[in-house]
Amino acid sequence: MTEIPKSHPRYASLVARERVAEGVKKGYTSTQGLIAQGRGECFDYLLGERTTASAAAAIRAGAALLLLAERPAISVNGNVAALVSEEMVALARALNIPLEVNLFHRSEDRVKKIADLLREKGAEDVLGERPDTSVPGLDHARALATRGGIYDADVVLIPLEDGDRCEALLAMGKRVIAIDLNPLSRTAKKATVSIVDNILRAVPQLTEEVRQLSNKPLSDLEKILNEYDNQETLAGAVQEIRDHLDEQFRKGSD
Amino acid sequence: MTEIPKSHPRYASLVARERVAEGVKKGYTSTQGLIAQGRGECFDYLLGERTTASAAAAIRAGAALLLLAERPAISVNGNVAALVSEEMVALARALNIPLEVNLFHRSEDRVKKIADLLREKGAEDVLGERPDTSVPGLDHARALATRGGIYDADVVLIPLEDGDRCEALLAMGKRVIAIDLNPLSRTAKKATVSIVDNILRAVPQLTEEVRQLSNKPLSDLEKILNEYDNQETLAGAVQEIRDHLDEQFRKGSD
Repeated sequence: MTEIPKSHPRYASLVARERVAEGVKKGYTSTQGLIAQGRGECFDYLLGERTTASAAAAIRAGAALLLLAERPAISVNGNVAALVSEEMVALARALNIPLEVNLFHRSEDRVKKIADLLREKGAEDVLGERPDTSVPGLDHARALATRGGIYDADVVLIPLEDGDRCEALLAMGKRVIAIDLNPLSRTAKKATVSIVDNILRAVPQLTEEVRQLSNKPLSDLEKILNEYDNQETLAGAVQEIRDHLDEQFRKGSD
Repeated sequence: MTEIPKSHPRYASLVARERVAEGVKKGYTSTQGLIAQGRGECFDYLLGERTTASAAAAIRAGAALLLLAERPAISVNGNVAALVSEEMVALARALNIPLEVNLFHRSEDRVKKIADLLREKGAEDVLGERPDTSVPGLDHARALATRGGIYDADVVLIPLEDGDRCEALLAMGKRVIAIDLNPLSRTAKKATVSIVDNILRAVPQLTEEVRQLSNKPLSDLEKILNEYDNQETLAGAVQEIRDHLDEQFRKGSD
């Protein structure tokens, strides 16, 4: 990887870009993943590259939902692996659940590379290499799933996922937590809890919340969930982008 | 290239993405160019994927500036070549001026490939393969320029260009026309005329304006320029993004 000085004003964004470029080189990520990274960079820039108040509330609700679930599951795709493989392993460990590799452009080689990467980072249980069932309503390669993983889960975390898969999982009666920087995306609109934040900031924060909330009584977790309103979260994210745009424009015009 | 049905709601965006992916395959564009394309997609999505009123005014002012120039020049980089090579050749022909290849990550091989592509599309005069001078204030490889082209120009069109190069050209006393989808970028803020629009829509429209305005008396062109206010254009673009975000969010929430 290219060395980036920590003092660089856009350090985090450049590190993320390097990670995805490295992911393409190593075969975790497709070239489409680079374009997706660029779109994410733009939304994060518009949010001010920070976890906003509405995102922090969504992260907390997501942690509560994962802790209340009977069988939570986590989906990992190419960009997720390139950007936050270690962080996803830490989250899976905090919840004591497996990670399941699931790709938009599935190839057995890419699935194996990502599963190997997750194991290298310390994951004990990685699913997705031997799918034994399908999510109804998706094209064959996209539908592949594993019993004991996403297929049987009641709550699924889907970072950087597309709208079709989000809707197919919801149609199975699951509750879905999305991490998606676009508050207008179909995924963000449909998910039970939408975390509109950069995955690099959101996943460690989610793990931290899981750790903090795991000692609380279930009634506290239920209260957090009951008080959470996803539509309000998305409205908050849209307003935060609008305010930030205005603020940045005024600042630049001095 | 992958066949995309014209009926697809995001046809233009998918075609652009295919063109850049093809540019990477053929060696015109770097992998950084894919990330830049993703950022552009995001801004265009936020603008509603249309030429806004403020962009149309900027295109008209840009055409007037090119026609009033004594020695206008046009800069072409990897993403510009991948996205609008034919359209740039048409613009150069309408103005009867050369195209000059200038890359952020210069390699002689990429310069030659892009120059060959432009000639294949009908360009009669392509500069950039044998630079004989430098733009002051830039790193060596980025500074390379050609006498009779950008170096001696009084007005330069720089589509998809970064802030450093924009500022270095302005510091030489040139007037600069930018095409940049980010109204907050340093390039957009510093340029004489900033066209905040997708290059795929903006370049053909700019060529059309050049053709229409070329018959007008110089006093008409000067009037267009005098009445143009770049700061107002950028404020308009920011407001258009803010309004569109709000509108899309409300629509999705029905």
